[in-house]
Amino acid sequence: MAEVRVAIVGATGYVGAELLRLLLVHPSVRVTLVAGRSGAGEAISRLLPSFTGLCDLKVEAFSPELVRERAEVAFCALPHGASAETVRELRKLGVITLDMSADFRLHDLAAHKHWYGEHHAPELVNEAVYGLPELHRDAIKRADLIAVPGCYPTSSIFALAPLVRAGLIDLAGIVVDAKSGVSGAGKAPSQGTHFSETSEGIRAYKSGGQHRHTAEIEQELSRIAGSDVRVTFTPHLVPMTRGILATTYAMAKGPQVTAAACTEAARAFFAGSTSVAVLDPGMHPDTLWVRGSNRAHVAYARDDRTGRIIGMATIDNLVKGAAGQGVQCMNLRCGLPEAAGLGVSGLSP
Amino acid sequence: MAEVRVAIVGATGYVGAELLRLLLVHPSVRVTLVAGRSGAGEAISRLLPSFTGLCDLKVEAFSPELVRERAEVAFCALPHGASAETVRELRKLGVITLDMSADFRLHDLAAHKHWYGEHHAPELVNEAVYGLPELHRDAIKRADLIAVPGCYPTSSIFALAPLVRAGLIDLAGIVVDAKSGVSGAGKAPSQGTHFSETSEGIRAYKSGGQHRHTAEIEQELSRIAGSDVRVTFTPHLVPMTRGILATTYAMAKGPQVTAAACTEAARAFFAGSTSVAVLDPGMHPDTLWVRGSNRAHVAYARDDRTGRIIGMATIDNLVKGAAGQGVQCMNLRCGLPEAAGLGVSGLSP
Amino acid sequence: MAEVRVAIVGATGYVGAELLRLLLVHPSVRVTLVAGRSGAGEAISRLLPSFTGLCDLKVEAFSPELVRERAEVAFCALPHGASAETVRELRKLGVITLDMSADFRLHDLAAHKHWYGEHHAPELVNEAVYGLPELHRDAIKRADLIAVPGCYPTSSIFALAPLVRAGLIDLAGIVVDAKSGVSGAGKAPSQGTHFSETSEGIRAYKSGGQHRHTAEIEQELSRIAGSDVRVTFTPHLVPMTRGILATTYAMAKGPQVTAAACTEAARAFFAGSTSVAVLDPGMHPDTLWVRGSNRAHVAYARDDRTGRIIGMATIDNLVKGAAGQGVQCMNLRCGLPEAAGLGVSGLSP
Amino acid sequence: MAEVRVAIVGATGYVGAELLRLLLVHPSVRVTLVAGRSGAGEAISRLLPSFTGLCDLKVEAFSPELVRERAEVAFCALPHGASAETVRELRKLGVITLDMSADFRLHDLAAHKHWYGEHHAPELVNEAVYGLPELHRDAIKRADLIAVPGCYPTSSIFALAPLVRAGLIDLAGIVVDAKSGVSGAGKAPSQGTHFSETSEGIRAYKSGGQHRHTAEIEQELSRIAGSDVRVTFTPHLVPMTRGILATTYAMAKGPQVTAAACTEAARAFFAGSTSVAVLDPGMHPDTLWVRGSNRAHVAYARDDRTGRIIGMATIDNLVKGAAGQGVQCMNLRCGLPEAAGLGVSGLSP
Repeated sequence: MAEVRVAIVGATGYVGAELLRLLLVHPSVRVTLVAGRSGAGEAISRLLPSFTGLCDLKVEAFSPELVRERAEVAFCALPHGASAETVRELRKLGVITLDMSADFRLHDLAAHKHWYGEHHAPELVNEAVYGLPELHRDAIKRADLIAVPGCYPTSSIFALAPLVRAGLIDLAGIVVDAKSGVSGAGKAPSQGTHFSETSEGIRAYKSGGQHRHTAEIEQELSRIAGSDVRVTFTPHLVPMTRGILATTYAMAKGPQVTAAACTEAARAFFAGSTSVAVLDPGMHPDTLWVRGSNRAHVAYARDDRTGRIIGMATIDNLVKGAAGQGVQCMNLRCGLPEAAGLGVSGLSP
Repeated sequence: MAEVRVAIVGATGYVGAELLRLLLVHPSVRVTLVAGRSGAGEAISRLLPSFTGLCDLKVEAFSPELVRERAEVAFCALPHGASAETVRELRKLGVITLDMSADFRLHDLAAHKHWYGEHHAPELVNEAVYGLPELHRDAIKRADLIAVPGCYPTSSIFALAPLVRAGLIDLAGIVVDAKSGVSGAGKAPSQGTHFSETSEGIRAYKSGGQHRHTAEIEQELSRIAGSDVRVTFTPHLVPMTRGILATTYAMAKGPQVTAAACTEAARAFFAGSTSVAVLDPGMHPDTLWVRGSNRAHVAYARDDRTGRIIGMATIDNLVKGAAGQGVQCMNLRCGLPEAAGLGVSGLSP
Repeated sequence: MAEVRVAIVGATGYVGAELLRLLLVHPSVRVTLVAGRSGAGEAISRLLPSFTGLCDLKVEAFSPELVRERAEVAFCALPHGASAETVRELRKLGVITLDMSADFRLHDLAAHKHWYGEHHAPELVNEAVYGLPELHRDAIKRADLIAVPGCYPTSSIFALAPLVRAGLIDLAGIVVDAKSGVSGAGKAPSQGTHFSETSEGIRAYKSGGQHRHTAEIEQELSRIAGSDVRVTFTPHLVPMTRGILATTYAMAKGPQVTAAACTEAARAFFAGSTSVAVLDPGMHPDTLWVRGSNRAHVAYARDDRTGRIIGMATIDNLVKGAAGQGVQCMNLRCGLPEAAGLGVSGLSP
Repeated sequence: MAEVRVAIVGATGYVGAELLRLLLVHPSVRVTLVAGRSGAGEAISRLLPSFTGLCDLKVEAFSPELVRERAEVAFCALPHGASAETVRELRKLGVITLDMSADFRLHDLAAHKHWYGEHHAPELVNEAVYGLPELHRDAIKRADLIAVPGCYPTSSIFALAPLVRAGLIDLAGIVVDAKSGVSGAGKAPSQGTHFSETSEGIRAYKSGGQHRHTAEIEQELSRIAGSDVRVTFTPHLVPMTRGILATTYAMAKGPQVTAAACTEAARAFFAGSTSVAVLDPGMHPDTLWVRGSNRAHVAYARDDRTGRIIGMATIDNLVKGAAGQGVQCMNLRCGLPEAAGLGVSGLSP
């Protein structure tokens, strides 16, 4: 395609806005439609002043026909649960759809029901491809419905998947202690994201295996392992806007599993990746280094005293953990260079 | 003692300044001397403008005789390694000494050498009492040299000790993922604590069992357990000034070890404590709730899917993790109410 | 009074919570009632976990009789407009009332109507004393209704009043550029105080003389000047939780009005103050130095190139800009030492 | 030129790193050399990990011949004072030079001496063009030495220049109250930029007309006015990494000078600009909206009560206040589209 025409459905949330930020400077894309359930008729630059002078689109009321008319590709940036039916309408009209919600990420309908409730478009689940290019590059190239994973799974899987694939760690006893910036909680204000109660404090939430994204992490690691993998996953809220750090813990399978060995395995795993860099042992990924970029940094340490491997991975939750990942999938699906429009380094400092 | 006369040695670092902040409003204390190796002759309120109009002391050059003349009790807030010889001088003159450094926290000289190098006053190690009142209240009351523990051990031990004491968790496989505010790194500026490279980012450091405070955590847990306990300890730097959250992971000894059972064990463990509150299951301690206070909050969750207990503890690293803990020890040693001068709640928000 | 019994009406907002934080450690006060329109029956420590283990009061439904029965003094920490009628009820029963809202701060009913709308208890306006001890100490001692001023007026007046009193500046052309932490916006979450849209950004708001507190600043400066004073007041929201810095600009009346002369005038103005420190010329007050304290720092510079005086004042908006100021007024009214319970220095860092 | 070959001298400071971040994704540029006085031989991605996997250049020792050999254009990102001699060497060899320091920004050598000391390359001062495209677009297109202005002058001039040009304000009595993120202080750590003493606090610095950038603001406004303009300029340090907000105050020349009139004048002034957006009256520019972008937002309010115009301008100090502005100048000089490589919107949130 010479120029891909793209629609963003749900453009005024954080993921939608980030998609627009990235796509407006993408060399092979034209954003032709920003649609929403609210705000119709308003200039997007009025709702999101960072676009003033850069984008003169107005928000339009969503209809699948309008999307079909204007675009080959649609990004659905709607809340979990709300997305499935919109996706169904778009798929009926043949629109290539990248769904940013969790609605199509789990392949097991029982698991979906357990974590999210009844599925609203179960017939599409098998069609959907899990949109993590580093794991499913080829399938993404052929998929018409791509379920783009979010920030916790991406970072957790990046730290652990190379070790699982290479058989370097025990599959039992994996711990993921994840630290997220506040933008991961979305745009709607709440007591828990009120500045005065978020700044200068850190806290866990949904501890004890209550966070729904646990299921995705386990699905993908189990697939790689070929057997059931369970993780203890604890998310934390950090007083910063963007970024996720997943610190993972697993027992090394013997003394030969050094930090260097893990690093080597990860470099093999991510060979040719346009997004992931594996840092040398001794370095500690900082979310600041990847802020605003579609980059992931991964690194490993070994605690010789306890025989445990510490795997660390950082991403920007709104880019490689959401919008950037979506664009990367779109590039693959549309035959564009995988990193098109995604080459910028982290905004650091 | 009607009024305890107190000297602060090393008053211009963060711990020294925090001691002064607390002691100036302590109802039974008079600060009679602030001594330092630098800044002698300067008004303390010039060096630390928060004291303007509240303290007219000048920094004086340290001499043990001067301390002896002016004070019954001395706080030594000097760097690790630099403290031991000053403590020796003070102890020779009979001054009750609260050492804020790590110099006398480890009882095993071999362990001390491994983590910190050769000890500069080894003859005093056996005399020193580990200044964690919740573990050593009675010994502290009789001690003339108190080694006040810092922020990582206090928070990590608080989350884990009740479970170890009650035999609720496996002693093997304990993970401590700790998150600290930047003030824990002290007052000296460095690239790693430069605002522009610390704000809006999170990173681990000294991963792989490299952090020296691991030894204290293990010493105290092993003492309680009656056998050797090892932990995988990973500190992280969080973009906030004060506060530590230790998130700990351990395998429950069976299904009866619920979050409620852990909570009950911790409430028994901390019964009568003037500093520690054990929150109900379902609550997540926030460092903001204890900021500026000598409080610790502890809470537990259980991940039924993996049988793992998540123990969380928060403190203000400069108060319950340093200066406040020192004052609490001083209160015990001087026959004052344990919470004297330490009753204020957290500065939240 | 040996011990003052105090009620806090509206205890769960930021000002109410801060009152509770201060009063629980006040040596001559017992908090006997925390009342609210919502949350009745809940333990205050459940709503505000920083009080866990320190305060076992439950929120009770407000009634003026209950306040009268339990307390000599009531603090009203209710929103502007909502406070007036509650104050009327309390005053009818003879309760000494400290109103934290703006309802009784303006003496001119026309001005009140202009900025806030119709007054709900106009008959009490003349009885109310403006609760800024540094300006109205004697009147506060005799007042039964004290209208405690907020953060913008306190800081702005502190920087300017000494210069106006001493006749050092032109009364025309005064500019106040004020920078506030986010807690000044209160506890209710909103898009404008959502962490992700507040952190890492600064913006003005209500520019062009739209902010209602302008009226108080002008009322008090005009009173001191003996003639009408108008100021251009622009508030800004700064990505920090607590603190206000007012930077003020005024033309010096001639070259003899140096920074030193302004400093001297301010030290005379605030002579004997338990709350205000005037820093030496060359120093720049930092809100961090007064955080969590009832302190105000004031300092002056002169721009010789333009003949303009820059006056700067910092306070903690929730302490000297609200709760601490209220306690200071209460101390005066109840014959206690003015600084009782308010002696702590700023939490810095 | 099909592809411009560019060298960055001083690549490891914040401005140098930001130049590299922008130029690596510039469609018509190839960075062929990163040179520094320190770090030679090190991979730039080792020094600045955000470039890992994106740039394999090594830092090389600076020599003017090397620059000449590799590049048509050089950016000099060296400290004030250190830059002049390097620029002289580069200009001798005919390299088009964009100097990011203040060394060539002032045309008046006496003023330069007053603010910065003796000039090290005075013979080049007349050749240099002030690199603010919105004021000197045509001259920049023909200049071989471009003195790129920094963050305070850019934002202050943007708020005021349209009003001066249109004759809407009194030239006497202008006040600029500027608020900067901490990255403006550069990469070298210091007590004043230490996280624990910068976070959660705001303070002025160099008040009283002491800041050197005052001279640039006055130079450019005076040129536009055709007469001598003086401003009272007070910079402040805000606890955020990036961004500057200049809030400016000036007396309107009569009641017809409304916010709408100022807005209209500014839109005329910036007509066709690729970088500046003038927001509608009632909007308040937020530095967050321009973070990471080469955008400037300008807006106006009028205080009818005092007849004063409040002009506000925001930029990212490292982009439109430094590196982005340099790239914009380079684009003009090299015949590229002015906004090439600079089209991205602000990273908000």
